[in-house]
Amino acid sequence: MKQQELIDLVKDMSLTEKVNQLLQVTSGFYIDEAILTGPIRENGITEESIAEAGTVIGLLGAEKYKEIQDSYMEKHPHKIPLMFMFDVINGFRTIFPIPLGQGATFEPELSKRLAQVAAKESAVSGIHVTFAPMVDLVRDARWGRVMESTGEDGKLNSDFAKAMVEGFQGDDVGQEYNIAACVKHFAAYGAPTAGREYNTVELSENTLRGYYLPAYKVAIDAGVEMVMTSFNTLNGVPATGNEWLMRDVLRDEMGFDGVLISDWTAIEEIIYHGYAKDRKQAAELAIKAGVDIDMMTGIYSKELAALIESGKVDERLLDESVLRILMLKNKLGLFENPYKDADPIKEKEVILCEEHRKTALEAAEKSFVLLENDGILPLKKGEKVAFIGPFVPEKEIYGAWSMLAKDEDTVSIADAFAKFEGVYDMTFTQGSPVLGAEDYKLIPKHHVKEVSKADEERMLAEAVEAAKGADKVILAIGEHRVMSGEAASRTDLLLPEVQQRLLRAVHEVNPNIAVVLFTGRPLDLREISEKSKAILNVWMPGTEGGNAIANTLTGNFNPSGKLPMSFPYNVGQVPVHYNEYFTGRPFDPKSGEVMYRSNYRDIPNTPLYPFGYGLSYTTFAYSDLTINKNQMTADEQITASITLKNTGDCTGTETVQLYIRDCFGSVVRPRKELKDYQKVTLQPGEEQVISFTINEEMLQFCRVDMSFGSEPGEFHVYIGADSSTEEYVAFELI
Amino acid sequence: MKQQELIDLVKDMSLTEKVNQLLQVTSGFYIDEAILTGPIRENGITEESIAEAGTVIGLLGAEKYKEIQDSYMEKHPHKIPLMFMFDVINGFRTIFPIPLGQGATFEPELSKRLAQVAAKESAVSGIHVTFAPMVDLVRDARWGRVMESTGEDGKLNSDFAKAMVEGFQGDDVGQEYNIAACVKHFAAYGAPTAGREYNTVELSENTLRGYYLPAYKVAIDAGVEMVMTSFNTLNGVPATGNEWLMRDVLRDEMGFDGVLISDWTAIEEIIYHGYAKDRKQAAELAIKAGVDIDMMTGIYSKELAALIESGKVDERLLDESVLRILMLKNKLGLFENPYKDADPIKEKEVILCEEHRKTALEAAEKSFVLLENDGILPLKKGEKVAFIGPFVPEKEIYGAWSMLAKDEDTVSIADAFAKFEGVYDMTFTQGSPVLGAEDYKLIPKHHVKEVSKADEERMLAEAVEAAKGADKVILAIGEHRVMSGEAASRTDLLLPEVQQRLLRAVHEVNPNIAVVLFTGRPLDLREISEKSKAILNVWMPGTEGGNAIANTLTGNFNPSGKLPMSFPYNVGQVPVHYNEYFTGRPFDPKSGEVMYRSNYRDIPNTPLYPFGYGLSYTTFAYSDLTINKNQMTADEQITASITLKNTGDCTGTETVQLYIRDCFGSVVRPRKELKDYQKVTLQPGEEQVISFTINEEMLQFCRVDMSFGSEPGEFHVYIGADSSTEEYVAFELI
Repeated sequence: MKQQELIDLVKDMSLTEKVNQLLQVTSGFYIDEAILTGPIRENGITEESIAEAGTVIGLLGAEKYKEIQDSYMEKHPHKIPLMFMFDVINGFRTIFPIPLGQGATFEPELSKRLAQVAAKESAVSGIHVTFAPMVDLVRDARWGRVMESTGEDGKLNSDFAKAMVEGFQGDDVGQEYNIAACVKHFAAYGAPTAGREYNTVELSENTLRGYYLPAYKVAIDAGVEMVMTSFNTLNGVPATGNEWLMRDVLRDEMGFDGVLISDWTAIEEIIYHGYAKDRKQAAELAIKAGVDIDMMTGIYSKELAALIESGKVDERLLDESVLRILMLKNKLGLFENPYKDADPIKEKEVILCEEHRKTALEAAEKSFVLLENDGILPLKKGEKVAFIGPFVPEKEIYGAWSMLAKDEDTVSIADAFAKFEGVYDMTFTQGSPVLGAEDYKLIPKHHVKEVSKADEERMLAEAVEAAKGADKVILAIGEHRVMSGEAASRTDLLLPEVQQRLLRAVHEVNPNIAVVLFTGRPLDLREISEKSKAILNVWMPGTEGGNAIANTLTGNFNPSGKLPMSFPYNVGQVPVHYNEYFTGRPFDPKSGEVMYRSNYRDIPNTPLYPFGYGLSYTTFAYSDLTINKNQMTADEQITASITLKNTGDCTGTETVQLYIRDCFGSVVRPRKELKDYQKVTLQPGEEQVISFTINEEMLQFCRVDMSFGSEPGEFHVYIGADSSTEEYVAFELI
Repeated sequence: MKQQELIDLVKDMSLTEKVNQLLQVTSGFYIDEAILTGPIRENGITEESIAEAGTVIGLLGAEKYKEIQDSYMEKHPHKIPLMFMFDVINGFRTIFPIPLGQGATFEPELSKRLAQVAAKESAVSGIHVTFAPMVDLVRDARWGRVMESTGEDGKLNSDFAKAMVEGFQGDDVGQEYNIAACVKHFAAYGAPTAGREYNTVELSENTLRGYYLPAYKVAIDAGVEMVMTSFNTLNGVPATGNEWLMRDVLRDEMGFDGVLISDWTAIEEIIYHGYAKDRKQAAELAIKAGVDIDMMTGIYSKELAALIESGKVDERLLDESVLRILMLKNKLGLFENPYKDADPIKEKEVILCEEHRKTALEAAEKSFVLLENDGILPLKKGEKVAFIGPFVPEKEIYGAWSMLAKDEDTVSIADAFAKFEGVYDMTFTQGSPVLGAEDYKLIPKHHVKEVSKADEERMLAEAVEAAKGADKVILAIGEHRVMSGEAASRTDLLLPEVQQRLLRAVHEVNPNIAVVLFTGRPLDLREISEKSKAILNVWMPGTEGGNAIANTLTGNFNPSGKLPMSFPYNVGQVPVHYNEYFTGRPFDPKSGEVMYRSNYRDIPNTPLYPFGYGLSYTTFAYSDLTINKNQMTADEQITASITLKNTGDCTGTETVQLYIRDCFGSVVRPRKELKDYQKVTLQPGEEQVISFTINEEMLQFCRVDMSFGSEPGEFHVYIGADSSTEEYVAFELI
């Protein structure tokens, strides 16, 4: 349809019809009429509104989808098709590593491919829009949803934001196998106070603009079709009713002209925040803020028409929202082909196909971060290896968002090592449940396989027995998948106690432990690090997790991941991130001065494993850091180079990282900031000069007047293996 | 002197003389010429600048002070007297409870008396200005300097701010025994990220204005003569160079016209923050921000004259600063009587006099908070009581700031109970050092009395032996005094490990434990609470600590303190405070809904002991919460009442607390806010109707446009024993 036709269509729609176009309900409403019970009806979701609702959240599968689309359109006064949305986060049915793991690849182009695969599987199943990527900057490991972020760095998040948007949407969302992306959660959802889910966000405007907003902006510049509001208040005003944030910043400044959707029931939550006295006012605040789609409350359906009729809300606001929704449907080609790519035959061909599994394997391997290794890894042929731990047989290794993941699709560690029968002398022992009796606490009970205390003891004894006789123990331990994700905040960053006991018991009889760590967040790994000789952090690796782990432990794949988020020393250190400010009394552990410095009495300031950190089975040496000149103007560039050498005895891939420090500014500047990175693969003994180009744009930041720009002065350039690199060369921007 | 004379005096001063008037050095510079070594001289502090420096930090004692003042004035071109400043925080030589303990009294009038006593002891010793009160709002127990705050509540902090300013200054600082107060640290020093000293402060402008600034404003309105800048950046700009904060907010909006002093070397630290490229720029930023006194850097002395001569800084800025300093000297009467109250004879009479000790005893008793008691306290005559723990003989029970505290002045628990010989059957055992070998870590070594591992074991064995035979154990444990205070941030909120071991060992042989807890901050008390039958939190009680504890344990004083700061459940819960916002998905433990709520997976949202909490040896019942009308206009008042009854069997004092919730606003409003409180003493069985007046001013807050005012709507009124009280009555502001 042409734009003018859409505008005419809006003009032709009745007030009710337009209001209903803004409603989003779950797919269940179209297959189960019993859902419409009392409270929901009272809240404004009625048969009539459902019959005209504009969009749906949920999955039906291609066949059912086509059926529903047909019957819906038949009844719709203007034959406007439904648009279906779904949380396609780290894969659809072929599950990839959680986004935090993807961040560890430092390879946005890979995530672009993952998004393409996920889009294809989604599209053939009748999905048009995914609620991804989440680009929220995260600095606090207590927050469960760090698993859905690519980490603590704005540059890395921005690169992944762009790649994922491009992957989902392709060049044109209307083309085959593309779906629309939705960047979330606008804004600053990733900074809840004390890491507690949905909690208050407190940020200065400068930090908001300088650190939190850029990744959303990059997604918008990449053409993302949709933005989702965040649950939190930002500086006292709930995002979903925040006119300044949504109109002034998102629309006017950042130039977003797509669809703005509320998060699940977020319009109603404006009331619970204490920002609106009732549903009518919540509706008014949300529409005035420019929220186009009301996800799962009947507030717009019930209140908007009356607000317009009474003159409290200008009908043009409604028309704008309707038009934006129709424009997206039109871009997706739904007016011409309301089925788009939905196809039951293609569903069978495409989903979980060999190529997709191969991509999942590649992604999982590249997401792994080797945190420690004294040489115990990789395994050597003929060794007697005891595989111990609840994650040896575990199939739930795909993270919180993977609604379609199935055990039968998933390769566990035990599954994967079956094919190494004869190569190693292997035993497989569970050792403990993922969660013990004292670990249940607030974990929803249906996620917990209860194990009796006696069974716990028996499992532990088996593990000790298995460990005793082995050359090496592969200890596969970690967080239960529901310990991270939405509404999974934790105040301790340790493993479940039952697994801590397992670690200690195994360690007592066999210190040759390599830990394979499953986690959705940075954990406090002090004890694990003391009691093991290697730690391979595999996050939540997805469908091909077991194979990727087997490839890595056996040395068929050499780990290359780097941490996209600091692993704190302990929970008392969070929020902790590498790009902190200096303070007026920076602590230098080498100085010996411990008093009246910005430090703690009990632990170092630095995290246990810093941002950008990760080992390889080989080693790399950095030398000859140089820049080609010591001064540049805003129009010029500087080339910074380093020589990288593979000093070990196997081929390996290193992510070489460029950091810059701006020595002073009109607001204080971080210790250093990641500005670029390159993944380089070198043969043993091979060396290569790695060069980066530094330009003025890289030196821009949000200044004291809130404008972005650079300021003249001294800058330090660091190139190294992680964010703790100390050697630098200086230049001046004149 | 008349104002015009001061203005003329400034006009008559040379540029150098004026610049030097802004310099503050330690008293050491006047008694030890050797201090002037290379680096200090290079930094701009020279014999010449010292000879004309305007103010001094440090104490000399009356005799030496007079001598220095004489010789200084003799040489000074205009015979301008020196002004002496000192950190008189919780007392001078007679030491009172730390400010956090004073907050627990909920009795600002008492702190006013303490300030009067401290002022008197200071004044006769030749001190003119104290760097108190610190009114920084604190929400994070990791920060060591919470000990110097009166807590997490703006209303309580404001009341104490006013009382302390009035106590130090009296009606007129020039009158006998008054000294000038200095409110600090402007602004928001109490909110460092991750509780790490001097760390970055991130606050929205609304939170800054609504929660953090009011207590400073109250101090200013109470006539405080001086304000100190804070060490931190506020939203990217160091406070000490922050023109917006110091000119626009402090001077113009808040109307402060007194002296603004930098914190120790804070002007130089503008450079380390990365906000100035060199000392010249730091000087320019600070003087432009209106910082009058440069504490302990030579930056003003070395740079200001040149900046003025080159036209970069207007000389009028310097003249203003000089005039403000001279005005304060004039208010203190120093031009007429440069000795003011300094008097070696009075020093002997006044300091540590019986009346002052009596006041210290009263303050210590009233600061104690009874956190748990199953009836084990008070002690009963004839009982066999084992006093165990490092704080039984300990005399360092006065907190971080008490530079003049002496062991010989201080009454320990053991000292105090000596007079109960015969009343109880007592043993006294140290049980452990305050800090064990593994607890030293970053504690400066000179504070640690090293104890060998063997001695630790011996002490533990003695304690176990003592505990075995006793009816009750009084276990006196806690933080070393240098574990809190400036630059004493901690990431774990537990006792030193050596004391945890003591608790466990004693508990194994005798569960009848009453813990007397010494601390400068809220701690994680879960284990202590499990292993004891009573906890009496005595903070750092000061000179008369032992006597106050003895009076309380024996029942001669009935504890009445209430927590001015939440005691968190664990360190992973911080920052935690009672007046948090609701969020859009508030967690209600009673609902059974644990998913998709703002909560943690592993612990409750609520602290272990909430703000306002504290028990008594008696019990109080609250009933009949009523208000006299359900609507009010801005001109009207509402009376809210409750009936309080002493339902126990001894006389007790209760702090009845009035909280109000504003149900919705143009920014979201806290769960509840303390608005008023009354301390009420009741005999056993006695009941009393306690009434509070609610007016419109109490309902004002910092609105979305940053103005203060009330907004019509529903309000809830709570009256109860602490901030967790749930019953309310509602009214509407129309």
